Amino acid sequence: MQKRTSPTLLLDEDICKSNIKRMAEKAQNHNLRLKPHMKTHQSKHVGDWIKDAGVSAITVSSVDMARYFAEDGWNDITIAFPCNLGRVQELNELAQTISLKLLINKPETTKYLDKHLANSINAYIEIDTGSARSGLTADNISDIQDLIAVINDTKYINWIGFYTHAGHSYSCRSKNEISEIQNSINNQFVYLRKHIKPNFGDFEICSGDTPCCSIADNFGPINAISPGNFVFYDLMQNQIGSCSYANIAVAMSCPVVDKYPERKELIIHGGAIHFSKESITENDVTHYGTVAHNVDNYWEPLDNTSHLIKLSQEHGIVRCSNHVFERYDIGDTITILPVHSCLTANLMKQYQLVNRKDTIIDMMK
Amino acid sequence: MQKRTSPTLLLDEDICKSNIKRMAEKAQNHNLRLKPHMKTHQSKHVGDWIKDAGVSAITVSSVDMARYFAEDGWNDITIAFPCNLGRVQELNELAQTISLKLLINKPETTKYLDKHLANSINAYIEIDTGSARSGLTADNISDIQDLIAVINDTKYINWIGFYTHAGHSYSCRSKNEISEIQNSINNQFVYLRKHIKPNFGDFEICSGDTPCCSIADNFGPINAISPGNFVFYDLMQNQIGSCSYANIAVAMSCPVVDKYPERKELIIHGGAIHFSKESITENDVTHYGTVAHNVDNYWEPLDNTSHLIKLSQEHGIVRCSNHVFERYDIGDTITILPVHSCLTANLMKQYQLVNRKDTIIDMMK
Repeated sequence: MQKRTSPTLLLDEDICKSNIKRMAEKAQNHNLRLKPHMKTHQSKHVGDWIKDAGVSAITVSSVDMARYFAEDGWNDITIAFPCNLGRVQELNELAQTISLKLLINKPETTKYLDKHLANSINAYIEIDTGSARSGLTADNISDIQDLIAVINDTKYINWIGFYTHAGHSYSCRSKNEISEIQNSINNQFVYLRKHIKPNFGDFEICSGDTPCCSIADNFGPINAISPGNFVFYDLMQNQIGSCSYANIAVAMSCPVVDKYPERKELIIHGGAIHFSKESITENDVTHYGTVAHNVDNYWEPLDNTSHLIKLSQEHGIVRCSNHVFERYDIGDTITILPVHSCLTANLMKQYQLVNRKDTIIDMMK
Repeated sequence: MQKRTSPTLLLDEDICKSNIKRMAEKAQNHNLRLKPHMKTHQSKHVGDWIKDAGVSAITVSSVDMARYFAEDGWNDITIAFPCNLGRVQELNELAQTISLKLLINKPETTKYLDKHLANSINAYIEIDTGSARSGLTADNISDIQDLIAVINDTKYINWIGFYTHAGHSYSCRSKNEISEIQNSINNQFVYLRKHIKPNFGDFEICSGDTPCCSIADNFGPINAISPGNFVFYDLMQNQIGSCSYANIAVAMSCPVVDKYPERKELIIHGGAIHFSKESITENDVTHYGTVAHNVDNYWEPLDNTSHLIKLSQEHGIVRCSNHVFERYDIGDTITILPVHSCLTANLMKQYQLVNRKDTIIDMMK
């Protein structure tokens, strides 16, 4: 095994492939099209595993990411981000070679786009189902109808339906709460379909958060799902109730560089530029990761009191229980489950595959 | 001017050079050697400006960063991080070409290093002056003396003095509080010098946080300073009291992609993977940045109520006062001062120089 002398992001290919397979099967069982969001892994290698599960359409969060995956052969890509008008030239180029889908939330965006495009694109209208980030609310039938009419009146933009990211599911702390959010989303889209279909014909509804896609059992009027984090999961998803520890496919391996018995604290090379400053609070402790070890082919916390409690730019402070503190000497490596795998992966820029003799796979630059 | 259609980190070269010049002059006036920490900018181009100010010794936080700057011609480099034993081969290689200085906090680290080195290195012992991160406390004379003796007994390691990073100065909120921390540091090193010098001869003391180095006027027994953030400063340093807005040398420029009049919120392309999730709380609002505009050759907040209040991976939500909300349309760019410039720079990986026709300069990969 390669000696890990720097902070290293480990990826368990088997767990990741199981996560992908499980979501693909769930989508199939519920008659949903799976259009996974690639922002979590940002890697064409993980993209290949997704392709192997029979997926042909994907979701991304930027024009750069769309281009990266288009160059890797994906030809049905949704940029799930309010359309960035400054990138219209690149959007036009992408639309020449792939089936490009954008989120369009405003008539003025529609008109500007249409004026500057020379190739056809498809447009979802984004619905704000409760996250209060972007999109129109489902009860705003009048504005939604006006926007569809403006889109239908363009030369290059085809209206195909609605997209939502129910980011408010991240505040859930149980499977029941998650299912309630999915039910609320379903009701909003039942209402929308009732009011929109008679005038504009049928359309697709795509909904995309990992908690709902992982847990909910009733997707009502939804046609497609676009979860992202599910390929890796993490401590935050575990806390929400979306996954178990056995589903978490990534972990950080960090060198122990110092230790302080009186505080039961280990100093590791692994800081804010490796983990990100995303934190969760469990049992009144706010932390950035949990000390874990590999058992039964997954990473399990060593106990529920040993966490990465403080981050400088490159230093991490791990406060441990007595028995965890005793396990590590200076020069050892320690394994830590990350709080938010998307942000940790984005910082680490590559993965070490633990099941394949520590092969390194990279992600978009 | 180049159109900024993606999140872009702007760097004002004039402000940055003024910050460097002011710190270099302050060091000279107080008879301190300036060994600036390069972790904030991580760029050989900014390194050149530091060189132009007469600086010849620098500080870094990793072996990779030491190598990057050594390759750029710096030959007196302190790695201000508890020595990572797994990288001993690279340390040995670096020590062959430059004057390398490490932090060594443990006898076992000393012995391991000496056994594996073939070139001389210099060692500071790290003193924990109150930040409770790493290092020995100054009252622990017995362990400190033992450690110096172990170091003096090696073939390749030369003990040169003490290093401290007073990270606890980041909790200060006034110039008085910062000066009190510097006084406490001074007292700890006066005590250390009194007890250590008689047995081991004189030595260097290097102290390194931006708040103290920016504000304190009395450095007592300190010989060298190694602040890092001062080259750019940011909102956090402004809140601490280390700088004014006119000293902040970096700002983010982000496209506005959507807007919501009822919430007075702009949606920008600029998220956690651009700003980092470092936040500050001002007037009970926790935020990730403040909307600013360029006046009198620096970036000034437009008011004290318009902030970046929420970050997804790529989305940012800017909650504005009425008049700030009205300034921006979809397709415009908005300028936002970052909370923690070190983490924002680390994510952005390059700078656009606003005073030099938007020249791009890069940083270490």
